[in-house]
Amino acid sequence: MKQIVVLGSTGSIGKQTLEVVRSFPGEFEVVGLSAWTNKELLLAQAWEFHPKYVFCQDWDLEREIPAGCQIAPSVEHVVIESDAEFVMQGMVGNAGLLPTISALRSGKQLGLANKEPIVMAGRLLVDEANRSNGALIPVDSEPSAISQCLRGENGEHEIRRLIITASGGPFRKIPLEQLDSVTPQQALNHPTWSMGPKITVDCATLMNKAFEVIEARWLFGVGWDQIHVLVHPQSTIHSMVEFNDGSVKAQLGPTDMRLPIQHALFYPRRVSNPCFPQFDLTLANSLSFEQLDEARYPCFVMGVEAGKLGGTYPTVLTAADETAVGLFLQGRIKFTDIRSLVAAALDDHTSTAEPGLEEILMIDAWARGNVVEKVSSLS
Amino acid sequence: MKQIVVLGSTGSIGKQTLEVVRSFPGEFEVVGLSAWTNKELLLAQAWEFHPKYVFCQDWDLEREIPAGCQIAPSVEHVVIESDAEFVMQGMVGNAGLLPTISALRSGKQLGLANKEPIVMAGRLLVDEANRSNGALIPVDSEPSAISQCLRGENGEHEIRRLIITASGGPFRKIPLEQLDSVTPQQALNHPTWSMGPKITVDCATLMNKAFEVIEARWLFGVGWDQIHVLVHPQSTIHSMVEFNDGSVKAQLGPTDMRLPIQHALFYPRRVSNPCFPQFDLTLANSLSFEQLDEARYPCFVMGVEAGKLGGTYPTVLTAADETAVGLFLQGRIKFTDIRSLVAAALDDHTSTAEPGLEEILMIDAWARGNVVEKVSSLS
Repeated sequence: MKQIVVLGSTGSIGKQTLEVVRSFPGEFEVVGLSAWTNKELLLAQAWEFHPKYVFCQDWDLEREIPAGCQIAPSVEHVVIESDAEFVMQGMVGNAGLLPTISALRSGKQLGLANKEPIVMAGRLLVDEANRSNGALIPVDSEPSAISQCLRGENGEHEIRRLIITASGGPFRKIPLEQLDSVTPQQALNHPTWSMGPKITVDCATLMNKAFEVIEARWLFGVGWDQIHVLVHPQSTIHSMVEFNDGSVKAQLGPTDMRLPIQHALFYPRRVSNPCFPQFDLTLANSLSFEQLDEARYPCFVMGVEAGKLGGTYPTVLTAADETAVGLFLQGRIKFTDIRSLVAAALDDHTSTAEPGLEEILMIDAWARGNVVEKVSSLS
Repeated sequence: MKQIVVLGSTGSIGKQTLEVVRSFPGEFEVVGLSAWTNKELLLAQAWEFHPKYVFCQDWDLEREIPAGCQIAPSVEHVVIESDAEFVMQGMVGNAGLLPTISALRSGKQLGLANKEPIVMAGRLLVDEANRSNGALIPVDSEPSAISQCLRGENGEHEIRRLIITASGGPFRKIPLEQLDSVTPQQALNHPTWSMGPKITVDCATLMNKAFEVIEARWLFGVGWDQIHVLVHPQSTIHSMVEFNDGSVKAQLGPTDMRLPIQHALFYPRRVSNPCFPQFDLTLANSLSFEQLDEARYPCFVMGVEAGKLGGTYPTVLTAADETAVGLFLQGRIKFTDIRSLVAAALDDHTSTAEPGLEEILMIDAWARGNVVEKVSSLS
């Protein structure tokens, strides 16, 4: 049995991870679970899977948990003490950074669905993984697609381009002047994927695609000019690799996050799961592709620019974005304010060249404060 | 320098192979060339590449060839005596069988563009390749695509389906009752690929796709019910593999045979070739997919059936088809007669279970005679 930890177990990725685990009795032993605030669901998961450690932000009732299960003092404690082989990182936002580093430092296989840690601290993560022989297995559909296309190939020197596809989100067609007044509910109506609220809003601004460009740079070791984004409204092709010799490989399939989750859990094996939907290209409409309209998606342009600048700019980018998206979801700012607030935080910041972990954490806190202060001073 | 032999050097595959070779001075040494009847072009190629051996069906003038070059008594002689590491098999039809077996028997890398040998004698070829550690590298775009999708994967037990795409040929849309009167010129007007005349007619009947199904069975070791054909009029996706876990990988790119040719020549390396066209999905129309209409393509149904029956039926299939296509190109029979004549030859035949090479060659000759006789008796 493969011993696994699921971080963010009550979120979208966490729940779907446990759904895959349920489909394979005898394959996985869940030895650790962590959640942020959904104590009730975490409790139910603890009683179902009997992990060694659980962590919840505001846990209080020790007597509720099953015998043999301990409440951990931190997420990192769950990662390290549970002695798992595989950690599914399904947390949301920058909070995933420390547990991600802990998992890599202890040489575990890490299924990375939470992309902010690698965006904000790519060099630290890659260095930790290299030092410890930990494995970074992408779970997000786009980098998972790219990693599958690169299986058995000869390395980054034979890559011409990575082509990351983007659905374009729910606002691909609406008049630009209406973006000011879109509601959180409209932003949460993703055309093709079912995901958590934070990433879904990032898909509407296309900030998420900037994160994926930065993530791809760290995961696959190619240059910035080798990473292209192509709008593909159907999301059937999850991403592609164009090689030196002009051959292009694509990974495609149903828009169901359980597939890349299971791919990471079993990697490098591939195992049949009868619960998954059948794939039939003849049932789909035709597949179409468009150039990205940069005027429609200023967050994408700004995000990639911050990635290229490097240093602590990507930390400011993710922290300011996470804070602004939270404020948008609470109805406190407009959709278009997300961009303005992140841009202002980046403007207010002066980066250091090769930041360490402590500095990254400090800048993360600073950027959150920067956004909150600006919004407070306006209201 | 990689020493190579090009069989069928004056045909479509042969000329494009030499075009790729020209793009990489210092990478390849052409040590053998063979052609059927185009003596003039073969001579020009001999003076350009200075091979050790050349073969041409009706060669006579020894004094024409460059010093150091010998006229070989057979294609197999070119294959064996030239001591090449790689053989590009670009011959047309069943005549490629013996040279293909010779190349595999002597443990060479074989770039297989000529699919009839593996259709008519799949078991013999696979057995030879296994015995000698010879490598079969598909050059035809569909099996090349599948082999690229399978790179780095764990083998046939993790394959759910191979999905071979088919353009549907030039007659995908015309009323069925008009098929009787289509001309060779219309049949040679392939919508997406530029290829030799025999294979282009096979694409119009979709017999070619039946050959690819049979070829895939031998090359990739999957069951008949795991090989699906999907009509994809744009030919942008060259073929796909659906794995056990629901993930689908596709290989795509420009419809230019030089790409899979170069892929085979350099395999497993991938090398940039500035002569190749740029690939841009946004310039293409959208990609569409349809179920295969069996009523429109009876040759496909009949061909796959002959493949499943096995024994010497596939030999009759390829030999009768090659003869009938030749007669159609000469204007002696109707397009729809191709199917009738091949069906009649299959009906007239009783197969043996595990035919050897000699039996296959005899049945090949018998099937050709069967078709010619029927046509002669009618006219």
